Amino acid sequence: MSNRLEQQIQFIIELDKLKGIIRRSYLVNNERRENTAEHSWHLTMMALLLSEYANTSVDTVRVMKMILIHDIVEIDAGDTFAYDTVGNIDQAEREQRAADRLFNLLPLEQATELRALWDEFEARTTPDAKFAKALDRLQPLLLNYYSGGTGWQEHDISLQQVIDYNGQMADGSEALWQYAKALLDDALEKEILSR
Amino acid sequence: MSNRLEQQIQFIIELDKLKGIIRRSYLVNNERRENTAEHSWHLTMMALLLSEYANTSVDTVRVMKMILIHDIVEIDAGDTFAYDTVGNIDQAEREQRAADRLFNLLPLEQATELRALWDEFEARTTPDAKFAKALDRLQPLLLNYYSGGTGWQEHDISLQQVIDYNGQMADGSEALWQYAKALLDDALEKEILSR
Repeated sequence: MSNRLEQQIQFIIELDKLKGIIRRSYLVNNERRENTAEHSWHLTMMALLLSEYANTSVDTVRVMKMILIHDIVEIDAGDTFAYDTVGNIDQAEREQRAADRLFNLLPLEQATELRALWDEFEARTTPDAKFAKALDRLQPLLLNYYSGGTGWQEHDISLQQVIDYNGQMADGSEALWQYAKALLDDALEKEILSR
Repeated sequence: MSNRLEQQIQFIIELDKLKGIIRRSYLVNNERRENTAEHSWHLTMMALLLSEYANTSVDTVRVMKMILIHDIVEIDAGDTFAYDTVGNIDQAEREQRAADRLFNLLPLEQATELRALWDEFEARTTPDAKFAKALDRLQPLLLNYYSGGTGWQEHDISLQQVIDYNGQMADGSEALWQYAKALLDDALEKEILSR
């Protein structure tokens, strides 16, 4: 068998580890917290369905690819909780090291393509990256809302923290941010999120 | 907020249930069995990386979309074990009903596009569908092999059953089937799969 295929398969086997990285968000049915592999699938489906709401026209396929790989660095670097100010200090450095190792498992031209997409996502300057990031903010907010606020309550997150952290959603999609804000108002009213 | 966006979000929330559908394959680390949402992500990554091995040139993006949605019918119909001959009798009918309900949660033109992709995947006549199916056969075989054969042993699956069930991989990719057969030979030698 070819060395090239073997390299690709070894990368694919390595990806299996993403199923063991546990995020803070609970599933809608509250049975358990979400892992990063299933989060990545859910988010890619959102990219497929919601790109009409991007502020600027985006390339849906590039957004999907970006999202598919956006979190694989967590295989080495772990998931850093959005509201964890200590963990966030060296997050960028840990994730850069992870990207160096993981993408380079692939044949050169595939490693280069995926690394470029990951760098673009991280930089958040292009319309595609801004929209991908907006979806990455919206998805856990949806899970928090539809699970009855379990994730928010568990970490004593207030409305203002949710707004401060997720407000950048508007850079990628004003429409989705408006939708999210309406959910947050409703969450306050239902008392599943505190002021 | 628009009724259209609300429809799309309700479909996205419904998709969360796929994370609770448990397949027979174990993760590589043997900690637990895989769920269908994370399987779908893993498989989409394989489509992104391995389409050069398709027998006939394929449209990688169509294959990726087909794979993203290929199992969402399991939300209603459950996962039917490949080697379960009883469960397989009414599987097609149950999945058709599930497809009717689930895709129609979406706005019409999105429902139509995704349903057409799903029908194409199920029919397995186009090169894109044959290749998508080949990946869907390869991924659990990889998990079984790299987890030390746990799934095979748990259900007393023999080499011949694995070959009979997965041989159609060759319709989509002769190269990947050759690769898989080499793994199976090695699995016999390592005694993690019985003859």
